[in-house]
Amino acid sequence: MTAKKPVAWPLDPLVLDDQIRAFLREDIGYFDLTATLLVDKELQGDFYMNAREPMTVAGIAAAARVFSFYDPSLQVEALVADGDQVAKGDVLLKIRGCARSILTAERVSLNICQHLSGIATVAARYVKEIEGTKAQLIDSRKTTPGLRAMEKHAVACGGGRNHRLGLDNGIMLKDNHIAVCGSITAAVERAKASVPVLTKVEVECDRLDQVAEALAAKADVIMLDNMSLEDMKKAVEMVNGKILLEASGGVRLETIRAIAETGVDFISVGRITQSSPALDIGLDEAE
Amino acid sequence: MTAKKPVAWPLDPLVLDDQIRAFLREDIGYFDLTATLLVDKELQGDFYMNAREPMTVAGIAAAARVFSFYDPSLQVEALVADGDQVAKGDVLLKIRGCARSILTAERVSLNICQHLSGIATVAARYVKEIEGTKAQLIDSRKTTPGLRAMEKHAVACGGGRNHRLGLDNGIMLKDNHIAVCGSITAAVERAKASVPVLTKVEVECDRLDQVAEALAAKADVIMLDNMSLEDMKKAVEMVNGKILLEASGGVRLETIRAIAETGVDFISVGRITQSSPALDIGLDEAE
Amino acid sequence: MTAKKPVAWPLDPLVLDDQIRAFLREDIGYFDLTATLLVDKELQGDFYMNAREPMTVAGIAAAARVFSFYDPSLQVEALVADGDQVAKGDVLLKIRGCARSILTAERVSLNICQHLSGIATVAARYVKEIEGTKAQLIDSRKTTPGLRAMEKHAVACGGGRNHRLGLDNGIMLKDNHIAVCGSITAAVERAKASVPVLTKVEVECDRLDQVAEALAAKADVIMLDNMSLEDMKKAVEMVNGKILLEASGGVRLETIRAIAETGVDFISVGRITQSSPALDIGLDEAE
Amino acid sequence: MTAKKPVAWPLDPLVLDDQIRAFLREDIGYFDLTATLLVDKELQGDFYMNAREPMTVAGIAAAARVFSFYDPSLQVEALVADGDQVAKGDVLLKIRGCARSILTAERVSLNICQHLSGIATVAARYVKEIEGTKAQLIDSRKTTPGLRAMEKHAVACGGGRNHRLGLDNGIMLKDNHIAVCGSITAAVERAKASVPVLTKVEVECDRLDQVAEALAAKADVIMLDNMSLEDMKKAVEMVNGKILLEASGGVRLETIRAIAETGVDFISVGRITQSSPALDIGLDEAE
Amino acid sequence: MTAKKPVAWPLDPLVLDDQIRAFLREDIGYFDLTATLLVDKELQGDFYMNAREPMTVAGIAAAARVFSFYDPSLQVEALVADGDQVAKGDVLLKIRGCARSILTAERVSLNICQHLSGIATVAARYVKEIEGTKAQLIDSRKTTPGLRAMEKHAVACGGGRNHRLGLDNGIMLKDNHIAVCGSITAAVERAKASVPVLTKVEVECDRLDQVAEALAAKADVIMLDNMSLEDMKKAVEMVNGKILLEASGGVRLETIRAIAETGVDFISVGRITQSSPALDIGLDEAE
Amino acid sequence: MTAKKPVAWPLDPLVLDDQIRAFLREDIGYFDLTATLLVDKELQGDFYMNAREPMTVAGIAAAARVFSFYDPSLQVEALVADGDQVAKGDVLLKIRGCARSILTAERVSLNICQHLSGIATVAARYVKEIEGTKAQLIDSRKTTPGLRAMEKHAVACGGGRNHRLGLDNGIMLKDNHIAVCGSITAAVERAKASVPVLTKVEVECDRLDQVAEALAAKADVIMLDNMSLEDMKKAVEMVNGKILLEASGGVRLETIRAIAETGVDFISVGRITQSSPALDIGLDEAE
Repeated sequence: MTAKKPVAWPLDPLVLDDQIRAFLREDIGYFDLTATLLVDKELQGDFYMNAREPMTVAGIAAAARVFSFYDPSLQVEALVADGDQVAKGDVLLKIRGCARSILTAERVSLNICQHLSGIATVAARYVKEIEGTKAQLIDSRKTTPGLRAMEKHAVACGGGRNHRLGLDNGIMLKDNHIAVCGSITAAVERAKASVPVLTKVEVECDRLDQVAEALAAKADVIMLDNMSLEDMKKAVEMVNGKILLEASGGVRLETIRAIAETGVDFISVGRITQSSPALDIGLDEAE
Repeated sequence: MTAKKPVAWPLDPLVLDDQIRAFLREDIGYFDLTATLLVDKELQGDFYMNAREPMTVAGIAAAARVFSFYDPSLQVEALVADGDQVAKGDVLLKIRGCARSILTAERVSLNICQHLSGIATVAARYVKEIEGTKAQLIDSRKTTPGLRAMEKHAVACGGGRNHRLGLDNGIMLKDNHIAVCGSITAAVERAKASVPVLTKVEVECDRLDQVAEALAAKADVIMLDNMSLEDMKKAVEMVNGKILLEASGGVRLETIRAIAETGVDFISVGRITQSSPALDIGLDEAE
Repeated sequence: MTAKKPVAWPLDPLVLDDQIRAFLREDIGYFDLTATLLVDKELQGDFYMNAREPMTVAGIAAAARVFSFYDPSLQVEALVADGDQVAKGDVLLKIRGCARSILTAERVSLNICQHLSGIATVAARYVKEIEGTKAQLIDSRKTTPGLRAMEKHAVACGGGRNHRLGLDNGIMLKDNHIAVCGSITAAVERAKASVPVLTKVEVECDRLDQVAEALAAKADVIMLDNMSLEDMKKAVEMVNGKILLEASGGVRLETIRAIAETGVDFISVGRITQSSPALDIGLDEAE
Repeated sequence: MTAKKPVAWPLDPLVLDDQIRAFLREDIGYFDLTATLLVDKELQGDFYMNAREPMTVAGIAAAARVFSFYDPSLQVEALVADGDQVAKGDVLLKIRGCARSILTAERVSLNICQHLSGIATVAARYVKEIEGTKAQLIDSRKTTPGLRAMEKHAVACGGGRNHRLGLDNGIMLKDNHIAVCGSITAAVERAKASVPVLTKVEVECDRLDQVAEALAAKADVIMLDNMSLEDMKKAVEMVNGKILLEASGGVRLETIRAIAETGVDFISVGRITQSSPALDIGLDEAE
Repeated sequence: MTAKKPVAWPLDPLVLDDQIRAFLREDIGYFDLTATLLVDKELQGDFYMNAREPMTVAGIAAAARVFSFYDPSLQVEALVADGDQVAKGDVLLKIRGCARSILTAERVSLNICQHLSGIATVAARYVKEIEGTKAQLIDSRKTTPGLRAMEKHAVACGGGRNHRLGLDNGIMLKDNHIAVCGSITAAVERAKASVPVLTKVEVECDRLDQVAEALAAKADVIMLDNMSLEDMKKAVEMVNGKILLEASGGVRLETIRAIAETGVDFISVGRITQSSPALDIGLDEAE
Repeated sequence: MTAKKPVAWPLDPLVLDDQIRAFLREDIGYFDLTATLLVDKELQGDFYMNAREPMTVAGIAAAARVFSFYDPSLQVEALVADGDQVAKGDVLLKIRGCARSILTAERVSLNICQHLSGIATVAARYVKEIEGTKAQLIDSRKTTPGLRAMEKHAVACGGGRNHRLGLDNGIMLKDNHIAVCGSITAAVERAKASVPVLTKVEVECDRLDQVAEALAAKADVIMLDNMSLEDMKKAVEMVNGKILLEASGGVRLETIRAIAETGVDFISVGRITQSSPALDIGLDEAE
């Protein structure tokens, strides 16, 4: 059985607009000295946003919205969709209209899609690595503060799937929580009696005996934390499809395939959202 | 002459609190299901935040503030200061008090200092590379949206210096602006007549004849955009200390020393704020 | 087997403060004309907040926080905890200090705990009705706009459990979604491939054949929408504990016991959050 | 003399939009998992919002605005106006366009008009009860936190009139304020010297001698707090139209007529805004 | 009869803090370059805020709060109260603590009390001019955008009284409104049937026949707009104390006494809030 | 050499909209009682905004935007541009459409352009006074809290130039900062090593020996604080065009020409933004 590809879901328009407003205000401050003092309001321009290296794009709809949010009179056309693979030189966006507005909004627009395409591209690389296995690549809460939704959107554009969106979006029982309750069994039972009905309960396990206990306690998901491939395989056999298994801890591009082949359902890679380098995307004026 | 080290300036407390509030609300949503449903409010804990690899730390004051902002009853003690070099295993923060609050605030606190220490550490590496030269490492507006102040703070913690903070914080004349005004001379003159009195005017130049024109027009700073080392040296001779020179474009750790030795005043590296990987920092409970 | 009682979870302090600020600003406007123009700032007072009828209290911590948020110099003591049953005449809060501040903050504080205790009390009545069965009372997204977290907190104080907190907190497949995908099977499969890992998928079913299909498709929860007791019992037999069942639709205090006895896991009652009358709580000055 | 019917005033568009934004953000969170993952952006739909029981509608303009605010491309048509009486089955709104947007915005839209129509309908019932008398039904500051303007709008839609909008919108002298000033006379005099020029001063009276004092002190309005019908009649005679009289305290549908017939000008009923059940309004797709 | 002096009411603490936060953020931007880069965090200072000319102070509590809001560790002591008359050289505030914080917050603090004391001082001059008459000086909605509450507070500190606080705080029937309704009579009747119960209705009149009509219609207040002294006296006789009269239009310090002596109740002067020059207040370090 | 005229730069649209929203909400509160209760939504009107005295206009684009922001269906046409000189009676704006919306938005629109045109007109008077000299009129941070950008825009409309926009927009070394560092030389050196690259360093000097030190330290700008004309001339000779000079301190219309003729580059006048009276602008309905 092969994992189905998750949907490259779009950002909610209200959430997006609130972020764009904040990001533009951050960069502009009082006003764009250069564009305002030097570029006539009447001057029209015709610009292209280009990929300057191959990539899986993400944040293109957001990058486009930056321009039309800042100046609704701009004509903005997206030539690719979030999640698309593009080649070096491909045009991503065309923006036409008031040159002053375009120059003012340019940097925020680029910063968004450079960052998000960086994440999507790395995610896509990990996803490709585990192609044909049952495992799905997932993200974590290790995201850049303020960019949770955008970065999880980028992971989805890269073919990955999302772990919980935030602390109200899943129960994750770690050492501390379990210690407080006395045992995995007690912790799971307590969690399952109170957690919102559509929310799952996951238990972080370091050892196979913990896996056995979590399984018996009917956790919904078990995280195998920094386990050896050996132990992961044993865990997969042990649960035998009854509950979902997530492998986690220091996963790298070089090691992910072997992990996927143990039969786990999910492999989480925190570094995708925290450490993917921005990619080279530029804005040029049409000649 | 050797460059002086810039001050590792702290974040403004109001700006910081507004960001921390937003970041905690982003992660917590309605409430932290796990901590709220499983950890008793009365339970006390004693936690250590540790560097799990060597680094130049940044965002430690912010990471500490996350805890006391979320729960003013927590005792938070910083054992290192922003800008410090620390070794693997060094304790950065001690947090003591309500365990539930600590567990809820943990991730946001870690995400901030992992990200900022990543930037400071890379910045420090570049700075070290050009030690003894006259050049200062500087950043750019290529920052993660929403984190402009934090990331520029991290660059300063790493020993770098800041370029303009935003669009209202400096004039940067690029191709488009110059084309609109007809010439570098006209653009500089127009900018200098109107720009706020304490703001400088910089001109982006690709060629030496442009440098000559910008020099004659009395720009405050000239950016040498993607120039060869040869041309940079000629530019340095040409301006002869009369105005400041910034080298920019694709600078890498391997190439920065040679650039610094041309005699330029500043070298900007956009990738520091856009592409530095997060570093490994963890939170452990005291035994 | 009897259902475990869910935890009467407290509101997150940041979420709470943001709401209290908004509610006080709403009521106060520019300033409290009466208190400001007539009551001397130095005047001290000693007030009691009393239950004027029996109730299950909720929002007591919030009501207390209103006073200390508005004026941190006030001494506020809660004599009962959220979720407690109290009798007519019981004192809920004692507030001592600047009389002007207390009079200004009084109405918002009362409005909150009158409304939330109304919900908790009705919820507790429903919960009592199904005592000893396996079923848990749950709420819905039919909440008063702006009060989602507070009202779900009140339901928990009354012994109920929460359904999803919002649209990002669970998949609920209704007619429209299923029609779009072609079948329950297709919809569930699509949802399960993309939904965040710790989020469940629920399917709304009107008929038993739909229940069968949802069961086969491995939905996590099935909502039995307006089904007869007969059909509910058949559904319970059909799923035989393999997945969770929610009964929904026009449930009343008079009908809930019979529904619980069919063996369903959850019974949702939208009217609890939408239509519970506020209870009588008052503030009196100590003689 | 019969009371004139107050205007069913509309909500201010800026106030309304700010609330709608907050309410949608509350329900949507990061994004609507179900609609976003399952419903194609291109899918068009045709929906009707229907009254499922007879009612006096309120919040219809707001409910319509929710859809066009969330997605300006939606076509939204209101078939009734706020304040209208409608029968079971009447269509209130037609919404046509992007099905995904409609499904995402549906619940907030319904929650608003179910809640406000509930208030308007109860208010209308009280108003009908006192038809032909001189008395007007009025509301109070006993409103759901965050919904002050909306709920007072709903009261007006039901034919009621508004008491003060907030604490800066009227002087209401209660026991505490009077005690502080020494006497009703002193309190009224102090209030009248300082209160904004277009704001009235009301005095809460429990006894007829207080009414006499407030009358002599030239209060603008006197509230007869929990008085007997007997005493109310005496108060009406005593003031003889010189100032306005408000009856207050535990008024019910069964008792309001007798109160109105005493000749008072206003009868306030706090439970209308605090305790009116939501009414049944649904959204259906056109076949 | 002589007018009573209105209360110099204080600003609401929540309203004040929200404004202070906004004002500090406006001035500081990312961070105070000068103080942050040059002044050591440990350096302590001892500062005095002084009046450099005689004045009626306003905004002193706000100016003090700016410092403690920005840095709660600062010790701030107010030596005068809002509404006090002070001489040149008088110390208004003492601030002691972190010098960096004091220098950063200084300008906002000064800007507030310079502006508000300017208003209070001019208001006090007008009030003094009409001493011994029955008339009270009042303000208008001609305030600096964003400073409505602060400026009305300043007017009260100067001994003036407030007209309506905003558009929801009084009915003012002008030409346009009257034309729409057909007559003053119709407009007043319509307004009185719907306006919130504690809100008055004022009619703007240019001519005596309009005054007669407004009187007959039982308006609460009549504004005599740009009337001659002659006509004002006639209006005063005509209404004979039955309703309140406000004189308005181009009132100056030289003309206000004569207007007050006509017997009107209120004289409004828009220029007080719009055009009072800021006064000289400075901050000095103790030697 | 004569100073070039600075550009009358427009306000950034996002900044402007955020302010307009806040200003309208401030004035409207819950709703405009008068317009909402008395003016039919269908009524159309045709209004003119007129200058009632000669002035240099500023804030006209903002005043126009107030109307279209509040009600996008209004047709608003500006007949003059910010910075224009207009005569008494000139029409500034035409507004056509829903009369209720126009009446509600009127006051905020007027308050903005009355205030800003007051500033622009006074600034223009100072600028005219120094015509033909090398000096430029500049503003300061002595602005009305909350209106920094608007007031600096108004100064530019009057032909003045802006000093720093805020504390992050320039280094200004005053007594305290210099004392902390030990000397002007040390302070300038420290500042120049750390300040953002495009930001200048200014030193406040009371005496000529300080000017000499600041010059030697290579400050970018020197402020001559309250110096005699004599000393200013000496300072001009001393720096001989090497750095920029700003004259500051108690400058009046009567004294500015003589100051300009000393040869300084900038003359700052704090009272322009703090103390310019609002001008008379009104809104009339077309007959």
